[in-house]
Amino acid sequence: MTITITAFERSPDGGKGLARDTRVRWALEEAGLPYAVRLVSFHAMKEAAHLALHPFGQIPTYEEGDLALFETGAIVMHIAEHHPGLFPADANARARAITWMFAALNTVEPPILELIIVRFVEGDKPWKDERLPLVQDRIRTRLTQLAARLGDADWLDGGFSAGDLLMVSVLLRLRPSGLLNEFPRLAAYVARGEARPAYQRAFAAQLAVNAAPSPAG
Amino acid sequence: MTITITAFERSPDGGKGLARDTRVRWALEEAGLPYAVRLVSFHAMKEAAHLALHPFGQIPTYEEGDLALFETGAIVMHIAEHHPGLFPADANARARAITWMFAALNTVEPPILELIIVRFVEGDKPWKDERLPLVQDRIRTRLTQLAARLGDADWLDGGFSAGDLLMVSVLLRLRPSGLLNEFPRLAAYVARGEARPAYQRAFAAQLAVNAAPSPAG
Repeated sequence: MTITITAFERSPDGGKGLARDTRVRWALEEAGLPYAVRLVSFHAMKEAAHLALHPFGQIPTYEEGDLALFETGAIVMHIAEHHPGLFPADANARARAITWMFAALNTVEPPILELIIVRFVEGDKPWKDERLPLVQDRIRTRLTQLAARLGDADWLDGGFSAGDLLMVSVLLRLRPSGLLNEFPRLAAYVARGEARPAYQRAFAAQLAVNAAPSPAG
Repeated sequence: MTITITAFERSPDGGKGLARDTRVRWALEEAGLPYAVRLVSFHAMKEAAHLALHPFGQIPTYEEGDLALFETGAIVMHIAEHHPGLFPADANARARAITWMFAALNTVEPPILELIIVRFVEGDKPWKDERLPLVQDRIRTRLTQLAARLGDADWLDGGFSAGDLLMVSVLLRLRPSGLLNEFPRLAAYVARGEARPAYQRAFAAQLAVNAAPSPAG
């Protein structure tokens, strides 16, 4: 059955790989699965056809036969459950990999998303400069804890898993801020993720979309 | 094997059921599983013994024999995977229930947590009053989308699932703000969740901890 995902017709990051379709592309590449991509404009994302797939009007979505999913975490979980390459075989190790998936999306990413709010969503507000260091310090708290747990290991719990895939993807959002480089262990961890051939293919595929001439002409 | 979770020795909400151990208690009650609770002080949460269980120094954690988990979403997932009552039998419906789990924690909860930041974490800042309506509007956007998808249904996708358990739990955090009551369908959805006997038992159990005399005297 063909797998079809959705992605931005034109990503807000211009192809840096930070849009969430890259996370799904990466998971599909780790699992060795071919996939089709349907590009969606910002306008179409808020229309009924796309909202039927994704009630919050975002990308990515995932379609495979009768199954339609949204939420990157759930899509990566589905791929990991049905194909080798993203979950360990041992049941307890698999449960811990799932823990890291949730930790990436629910504990580490929220303060990072605040950085986007303070910089862009509220970038014209008078409190921007005073709030920025508060938000940065909340991120540093999380990164300090994460670096302490990672220690000198290559990955968060044994071999590379879907937990690492999501954690690396979340941390990548920090690179433009310079915060990642304050934590050499985490910067090296992210670099290990980026060096994986599956990530390289996923990154190249999203870049090809965003480097193409604008669909408007 | 005994299941042991951790919870606040004294919850910041004084027993309103908003601390995350209530979500795990609820899942355990839906599955009909007995469990033990180890209470942790704010001080002890940041010490080595607890950090070994939860690298971000939070509650709840989950221990069952050799398995130790953190992250509420992962714990609820583990319970749902191993016991009936939280996931539908059909594989596609199960994948959609997982989608709603991630949607609750990763799409709906982050703007709600911002409300806590603006009100409490940054409650003494001069921008508080001007930021509050911006944050409230971001929450309203998500609630509008969620209410549209729920429609007149009782639950998000067929019967009650772990997705509803987490979504109701996330929405409950909004009750003190009054925002939930702007969306009657969602308020009724939350009330349906709260009316479940398993939720009632979970709520009572956490209240008993928080209504007890302070451990300090």
